[in-house]
Amino acid sequence: MIDLRSDTFTQPTPAMRQAMAMAEVGDDVFGEDPTVNRLEARVAELLGKEAALFVPSGTMGNQIGIRLHAGPGDEFICDLHAHVYQYEQAAFAQLFGISVRTIDAPGGMLCPQEVEEHLRPDSIHSPRTTLVCLENTHNRRGGRVLPQDRVEELCAWAADRGLARHLDGARLWNAAAATGVPPADLVRCFDTVSVCFSKGLGAPVGSALCGSRDHIARARRLRKALGGGMRQAGVLAAAALHALDCHLERLADDHAGAQKLAAAVREAPNLGLIEYGCDTNIVVAEVAPALGSASELCAALRERGVLTLPISPKRVRAVTHLGVSPQEIDQAAAALREAGG
Amino acid sequence: MIDLRSDTFTQPTPAMRQAMAMAEVGDDVFGEDPTVNRLEARVAELLGKEAALFVPSGTMGNQIGIRLHAGPGDEFICDLHAHVYQYEQAAFAQLFGISVRTIDAPGGMLCPQEVEEHLRPDSIHSPRTTLVCLENTHNRRGGRVLPQDRVEELCAWAADRGLARHLDGARLWNAAAATGVPPADLVRCFDTVSVCFSKGLGAPVGSALCGSRDHIARARRLRKALGGGMRQAGVLAAAALHALDCHLERLADDHAGAQKLAAAVREAPNLGLIEYGCDTNIVVAEVAPALGSASELCAALRERGVLTLPISPKRVRAVTHLGVSPQEIDQAAAALREAGG
Amino acid sequence: MIDLRSDTFTQPTPAMRQAMAMAEVGDDVFGEDPTVNRLEARVAELLGKEAALFVPSGTMGNQIGIRLHAGPGDEFICDLHAHVYQYEQAAFAQLFGISVRTIDAPGGMLCPQEVEEHLRPDSIHSPRTTLVCLENTHNRRGGRVLPQDRVEELCAWAADRGLARHLDGARLWNAAAATGVPPADLVRCFDTVSVCFSKGLGAPVGSALCGSRDHIARARRLRKALGGGMRQAGVLAAAALHALDCHLERLADDHAGAQKLAAAVREAPNLGLIEYGCDTNIVVAEVAPALGSASELCAALRERGVLTLPISPKRVRAVTHLGVSPQEIDQAAAALREAGG
Amino acid sequence: MIDLRSDTFTQPTPAMRQAMAMAEVGDDVFGEDPTVNRLEARVAELLGKEAALFVPSGTMGNQIGIRLHAGPGDEFICDLHAHVYQYEQAAFAQLFGISVRTIDAPGGMLCPQEVEEHLRPDSIHSPRTTLVCLENTHNRRGGRVLPQDRVEELCAWAADRGLARHLDGARLWNAAAATGVPPADLVRCFDTVSVCFSKGLGAPVGSALCGSRDHIARARRLRKALGGGMRQAGVLAAAALHALDCHLERLADDHAGAQKLAAAVREAPNLGLIEYGCDTNIVVAEVAPALGSASELCAALRERGVLTLPISPKRVRAVTHLGVSPQEIDQAAAALREAGG
Repeated sequence: MIDLRSDTFTQPTPAMRQAMAMAEVGDDVFGEDPTVNRLEARVAELLGKEAALFVPSGTMGNQIGIRLHAGPGDEFICDLHAHVYQYEQAAFAQLFGISVRTIDAPGGMLCPQEVEEHLRPDSIHSPRTTLVCLENTHNRRGGRVLPQDRVEELCAWAADRGLARHLDGARLWNAAAATGVPPADLVRCFDTVSVCFSKGLGAPVGSALCGSRDHIARARRLRKALGGGMRQAGVLAAAALHALDCHLERLADDHAGAQKLAAAVREAPNLGLIEYGCDTNIVVAEVAPALGSASELCAALRERGVLTLPISPKRVRAVTHLGVSPQEIDQAAAALREAGG
Repeated sequence: MIDLRSDTFTQPTPAMRQAMAMAEVGDDVFGEDPTVNRLEARVAELLGKEAALFVPSGTMGNQIGIRLHAGPGDEFICDLHAHVYQYEQAAFAQLFGISVRTIDAPGGMLCPQEVEEHLRPDSIHSPRTTLVCLENTHNRRGGRVLPQDRVEELCAWAADRGLARHLDGARLWNAAAATGVPPADLVRCFDTVSVCFSKGLGAPVGSALCGSRDHIARARRLRKALGGGMRQAGVLAAAALHALDCHLERLADDHAGAQKLAAAVREAPNLGLIEYGCDTNIVVAEVAPALGSASELCAALRERGVLTLPISPKRVRAVTHLGVSPQEIDQAAAALREAGG
Repeated sequence: MIDLRSDTFTQPTPAMRQAMAMAEVGDDVFGEDPTVNRLEARVAELLGKEAALFVPSGTMGNQIGIRLHAGPGDEFICDLHAHVYQYEQAAFAQLFGISVRTIDAPGGMLCPQEVEEHLRPDSIHSPRTTLVCLENTHNRRGGRVLPQDRVEELCAWAADRGLARHLDGARLWNAAAATGVPPADLVRCFDTVSVCFSKGLGAPVGSALCGSRDHIARARRLRKALGGGMRQAGVLAAAALHALDCHLERLADDHAGAQKLAAAVREAPNLGLIEYGCDTNIVVAEVAPALGSASELCAALRERGVLTLPISPKRVRAVTHLGVSPQEIDQAAAALREAGG
Repeated sequence: MIDLRSDTFTQPTPAMRQAMAMAEVGDDVFGEDPTVNRLEARVAELLGKEAALFVPSGTMGNQIGIRLHAGPGDEFICDLHAHVYQYEQAAFAQLFGISVRTIDAPGGMLCPQEVEEHLRPDSIHSPRTTLVCLENTHNRRGGRVLPQDRVEELCAWAADRGLARHLDGARLWNAAAATGVPPADLVRCFDTVSVCFSKGLGAPVGSALCGSRDHIARARRLRKALGGGMRQAGVLAAAALHALDCHLERLADDHAGAQKLAAAVREAPNLGLIEYGCDTNIVVAEVAPALGSASELCAALRERGVLTLPISPKRVRAVTHLGVSPQEIDQAAAALREAGG
């Protein structure tokens, strides 16, 4: 089977497994794992932040990030389709007592005027709005790269208003690969950023939260409370370091593969590419009524050896990654044309 | 000054004060206040529910109501402009770890199809949707009475889906007065209902939460944890009982007064009545750019002896209540015509 | 029946009812109730603090007080038998995510050495200790007045350590009456203090939290979130003001009455006064096995027309208050001698 | 340096690294990691429970375990020195709103009579006691093995009272090795059990929570909310499986080594073994005043090439594990004799 359900399904490569097997490790709860320490320093530098913290998942990175800027009685604003709202079990409310205000933002890009209208007034009747979150690339908006000028405009406006900025950069690497802009430049206007090693980069486990030294010191406490303090985590960090060394550049291949799939979607009479097109490694196809539901299309593709995910009653998602060869991309494109015919 | 800012500003009448002064009381934390007990029995009967609990505010009634049907990891759905989301400091998240999903529902009336689309899938990635909240009459939608057939349709659909239903009935008495439908008939399809005595009914303090005996037993515990357990609360309950005896029928007068104000708003060249018209005792005027902002209109009205509240940059709210005489209504209408000219 | 179960059972006097009936009121959620404002100013002055907030219960006053100095991830230290730990449903954890460390402190008086041993180390493994709470007089320790020199020593030590100090002063008035020390002198070393009007002072409902202007501004937000914002709360505040005017001095009578009951307990062969003696208006009797359980003694007293409360399997509590005449005290003392014989 | 600070400092062996490098993996968030699935099945069987869940830390295993049996408004009872209270940042309160009642239980073994006295009454004033936690072996009580007959007596009593039972079995493997009782027999009377692979077993990362199928389904949701859902976690699970295959039997060697250290402590004139002796792989020495503080002893041992941890102002802990050879044990014993002389 060609597995396009998500880039989280990637298998570690032999070289990555080798790096893990050789990793120098220590007890990271005591700050003594040299490989974790190296990874954290490396990521902080890559993102131009003072410090970084290795965490077991993107969810933990994002939710700690939100918690750093908000607490009980506070509210943050994000796109209605943000991963932090859609796929993280509302941990911000469940664990931290934080409220949320969502805006259905075209392309996932909040604009200052609309955010302004959704700010809470300074009143005992309202929670305090303290934080704005963005996501780049944007998963549910088809892997879209946020327009950097608008990102910076929003962040500057938010900073003026005293609002913190957190970026869910689970696929920030893809945004950097697609635009050619270095990651640090993409995230300069954010206070904190989370990035994942277990998606397009192909590491088995792990994410990082980056920010100021103070933020990361507080994040370390929160990670412990959440049960995210791991011992010889260097075995995982070694894979992430290997991925940063060897898998960043090849993201362009995933994007090229996605273009082929997007072309197939455009050509298939009963499929349509969503409005945001295909910026990176995610392809979202809208299913015409003639074909039935998203689940039915997924089933038809599965019969043709291709695994995809329905992400709404009418939309199917395919994600390219290092586990899919160019030849398999061609097969998948053919399957899309057939099933979408 | 003619105070139309809110019906929460009503002063207790001499007869109500007399009732309070004569109230038989006991320690309600021990369940021994006979007047509170009478009030709770009376309200439960009026609303056709098994039991009721006296609480110090509508916020406490609503938030306990939400908590009865949701907890950490759960989510409830309500209109974007619901009081429980807009004016209760997100206590559901802050204190109880509950997430919220808002829908900008025309007239505050959620419809099954749209709620269906906003239900969370059964997945570890999502909180569980457990509750739908409505508000009748709807404060920020101009005191609108929800169409009862659609309320019942939504509740029947929600019950089929295993979703609980809570009604914020802070001004349910106004809905009953406006429609002639008995309160119990308006709320039959809800699991729990909160009602207020300190708005149109004119009591100084207090609300009630109604539901099944089990719900109210749990609510009593929650009230204690929130610090809402009061001792000789019968002095307040006596006012509420007096209001139920003497102030229910006169709500029609408030509605008549509101009609006069609404007519003035319609006539004033630079004012417009909001889309929901004026169903009960709340009048919301949209301010034309020529007049400036909502705050500027409020200032102009204040100079004419009339207090109102800006509820958004372009909208001003006036609320009629027992503290405003017919003559004052005429004065206020005149002020609206002048200031809105 | 002579009701000695608690001083929370007091009935408002005719003069107090009159004061309530005449109270000038406004909407306190908007800060416009003149009687509430007067009460808050009066209490703040009496306690030598910058500001005060009227709340519906002692539980709300204490739990907001704790929340002002601690949040999720923090811990406070108190006596094992403190009211805030024993009788407030662990709201600090339930609503606010705060952990607690209890010390079984003789007489309810924590000492610096022992608190020192219970401070959490500065480590990601531990919550942060941020607050020490005392209770004066101490309910479960028999209405004991804390020794003021030791209170001041502890608070000075805590301040040195950067720990906040909150006093549960539900019966602070009794401590002042018993010692002749003005309330402000008793609480100078605390950051925040809660006091009750509905216990010995005989008001039907209400407490106040006192502290700095900043603390009280934050407390006002928390009160709103908890549902403690009331409208024309002046009807209750008037009773509290009346109590401060007329019922403070008479607390000495309650203490004298308690001495008579304590003497009866000491004389009764099968009863013993607890180790802390009887400092104020609370008498706790230990029941000898020959008499059976605390509940059995309560039943025997009830047959003799006296209501008391079992507070543990072997202890019975009687509380004197303004609703009990000197003659009734004599009757109750006689009943104790008989039932304890 | 001979590192006896904790058995969490163990390095993966070459064979374990090999197992990790060869691990068959999948996306465990989707339940598709075959190695994780094998580990979970294996642990569940070993412990005689229906199901198990792999989590990144013992803290996550324990805190989810507590959450399964308690929620906001509930309270659990544990030994004052339990790891769940001492070293897990009070996550139960911080994240879940759960209160705690601690008992200073000799040897960490709660007894029914004392727990009975600490149960909360059924009252709106109190949280509900819903859970009792034990820890076996008990870290802060010197690695003590709980007496199994008393464990079973307590659990039977608790079950009668409707109280759930959770075991922190971070070092359950050591209890089994020390007593010869199979793990499943040790934990039969508990509803849920957490065990660690990253302590004596020597795996780099990971723990498991075991219980009924229903418990584990709920735990899976909680793990996701906490950010503990990992992708190709099989690389870690492979190490845990290897440890279960190869490192269980050798725990006896650690215990033998600990006996040598304990003998040295007993012999050193200025050291004393704590009251619980040395049951397993943890040795706790009490430092006589002549030697100064625990930290000073640690420093003296460090000069002799031995790392230990101060766990209180007067107590030093040494832990044996697979990273310490018999010869190093002898060196460490000599160092203890010298430094403690």
